[in-house]
Amino acid sequence: MIGEILSTGDEVCLGTVIDSNAAYIALGLDEIGISVTRHSCVGDDMDELVSILSEIGRRADIAVVTGGLGPTVDDLSAEAAAKAVGGKVGLNPEAAASIEKYFARFDRKMSGSDIKQAMLPADATPVANTDGTAPGFILHVGGCRCYFLPGVPREMEKMFAKAVVPDILAYRGDETSVTLRRELSLFGLPEALVNEKLKGFESLFSGVKLGMLARFPVITVKMTAVGTDRKMLADELDKAGDWCAAQLGDKIFSMAGRSMEEEIAFLLKDAKSTIAVAESCTGGLIAHLLTNIAGSSEYFLFSAVTYANAAKKEVLGVAEQTLQTHGAVSEETVREMADGVRRVSNADWGLATSGIAGPTGGTAEKPVGTVCIGISTRDATFAKTFHSPFKERLSNKQIFAICALDALRKHLLKAKGK
Amino acid sequence: MIGEILSTGDEVCLGTVIDSNAAYIALGLDEIGISVTRHSCVGDDMDELVSILSEIGRRADIAVVTGGLGPTVDDLSAEAAAKAVGGKVGLNPEAAASIEKYFARFDRKMSGSDIKQAMLPADATPVANTDGTAPGFILHVGGCRCYFLPGVPREMEKMFAKAVVPDILAYRGDETSVTLRRELSLFGLPEALVNEKLKGFESLFSGVKLGMLARFPVITVKMTAVGTDRKMLADELDKAGDWCAAQLGDKIFSMAGRSMEEEIAFLLKDAKSTIAVAESCTGGLIAHLLTNIAGSSEYFLFSAVTYANAAKKEVLGVAEQTLQTHGAVSEETVREMADGVRRVSNADWGLATSGIAGPTGGTAEKPVGTVCIGISTRDATFAKTFHSPFKERLSNKQIFAICALDALRKHLLKAKGK
Repeated sequence: MIGEILSTGDEVCLGTVIDSNAAYIALGLDEIGISVTRHSCVGDDMDELVSILSEIGRRADIAVVTGGLGPTVDDLSAEAAAKAVGGKVGLNPEAAASIEKYFARFDRKMSGSDIKQAMLPADATPVANTDGTAPGFILHVGGCRCYFLPGVPREMEKMFAKAVVPDILAYRGDETSVTLRRELSLFGLPEALVNEKLKGFESLFSGVKLGMLARFPVITVKMTAVGTDRKMLADELDKAGDWCAAQLGDKIFSMAGRSMEEEIAFLLKDAKSTIAVAESCTGGLIAHLLTNIAGSSEYFLFSAVTYANAAKKEVLGVAEQTLQTHGAVSEETVREMADGVRRVSNADWGLATSGIAGPTGGTAEKPVGTVCIGISTRDATFAKTFHSPFKERLSNKQIFAICALDALRKHLLKAKGK
Repeated sequence: MIGEILSTGDEVCLGTVIDSNAAYIALGLDEIGISVTRHSCVGDDMDELVSILSEIGRRADIAVVTGGLGPTVDDLSAEAAAKAVGGKVGLNPEAAASIEKYFARFDRKMSGSDIKQAMLPADATPVANTDGTAPGFILHVGGCRCYFLPGVPREMEKMFAKAVVPDILAYRGDETSVTLRRELSLFGLPEALVNEKLKGFESLFSGVKLGMLARFPVITVKMTAVGTDRKMLADELDKAGDWCAAQLGDKIFSMAGRSMEEEIAFLLKDAKSTIAVAESCTGGLIAHLLTNIAGSSEYFLFSAVTYANAAKKEVLGVAEQTLQTHGAVSEETVREMADGVRRVSNADWGLATSGIAGPTGGTAEKPVGTVCIGISTRDATFAKTFHSPFKERLSNKQIFAICALDALRKHLLKAKGK
């Protein structure tokens, strides 16, 4: 089956908003075996909309269209869809009821402009929207089953997963099929090398669809299996996951598709341990990542972002002598930083970073991209130096932060094994 | 003139990479008065590429195509372009020379697969790439002047600004024209309301193109004027900028298009002042933003991310009594946090946050979205409470951080005025 994606709206077409919906939908369609051959985007322009919907109706079997379902005059999707099939819009009672139900939750009544959102093409089937006012709808345009969804990512994503995917499966006669997924998260390999290492996957696991999502500096390997026998699919995914793990080794930090900060949260909670961080070159990013997790106050106590050497001495008790002899970017300094922050906050674990994020500040001995990472426990202190190939400040801050958390993760696992 | 954008590559079409190039190019074309009517994306598939290039050749006057210029077998753009005009690719000596020159900088010689990147359609004009190996090229397909650029954003953006924009201006006979830009940054208004407040701009300043870029929670208003008289354009932009400033009031934090952290950097450096931060609910994000600026060690000394109350007491000297009586999220507590962090690091300014980012932890009195901000100088201490309408943790962290920096900015300006 051929799939297409259409994003609509002046803000996307003019570039004031980056279209992240298309990638989300493309991945989702790919997972259930629909090859997406084309994405398109047009503005809020009736002629353009009608013309591109007609083109898609000739080319594709399945299409997902986002945007243009709201109450304002710019929202043209329903009318354009009606025109593309030579029809008109009319009040859809089911859609009107769903809008009324949504408003009732907030003790509000539906007003004049809201009713526009219930005006759908005559043959359209409404799709409920539990997170916003505008319902979506399904309509055949030419030979293509088109799913019209809102442009708001949160609303769109829910409707795509809850309504579109099951409808596509039913449409192609897969009602009884189940979709199982597995995700591996890894850090420390470039995308091209991951591709290289996973060569041969397709022939070994022909029933499993392999995908990859790069969110710098982390890569998620996604495996999807569609079929009717849940047990068989799960076994196949287990085997495929184990094979990938063998190929990628300890670059994998989560077999459950967690982000690095989620994995650390999981391990710390599991061990009922607490952490404190002392950051120099990462400048607060480690604390920011850790506190992005709801409930992080359970294990995250404190981060000292000690940019100035005075703060390293005052707050963490790093010795003047250490800074003088070895410099701020040294294993000796991060050891004292990690020990210091653990002590001052009475945490179980101390994690420290000091490095050169760039673009300037590098030397021949310690070039831009150098980072020293210190880890302190109640029993011992460790330090190690890593090198990033990047010269750019923001990329390096991100790599340094994930690298430090990955080092901590390995120590947490070792402590757990004891 | 009608413009189109085509992104190519399996990774974009399959959704493993979000296409941010299209938005960048759309904004850039819009600035020089080219209306972009359509974006498209296809994978690394010869038939699809040839067919969409031919379509674009029939529809548009100007098109920017990204991706598919590299040395691997997946890189099909040059061959597809040749096919679309019924021609063939051949070695382009100018392109070959530019690749050799690029390699010479790294003491490398061009190898077999690299030469592929110099194989261009017969009538193509090469576009130099100073940041990568693959040159771009210009080719007329049907009635459309097509610019083929690499998909790597850094390379693409440079080539777009340095080669594509001037070529478009020359192509439409604007060789002597200059493009002047002005950007205003603002915080605290939703996009729809900014639109509303700037209604009437087009009729007042017909020579100035207005655009908007939303990067949550900051909005950048972009004004562009194209013409031949630099002085007249600058005057017109000044007037337009002043008019916008009057409409948007103190929501504007930079008349120079700076980010909030750049504006703070500018003000602190200008005043030769230093800052220390005490963060609770922002969890390190303020420190992260401040240290994203190269050279921030000049004014940023320390941030204490005191998630645990013990850390607030130990490191910042917040009184147990204050926490007991008023709670961690209170103006009383942020006052003591701001004073404490300024004192401990001997900074000129102390900035503190404590609030409820969510999704849980809110009460009737202090709902999710509440943030208290404290500011401390050597002479006085201030505190204020703000409310965000969001319930989502990451959005609130971002709003809280920008809100705190904006409050600091206003105090820095007041201190400067003295």
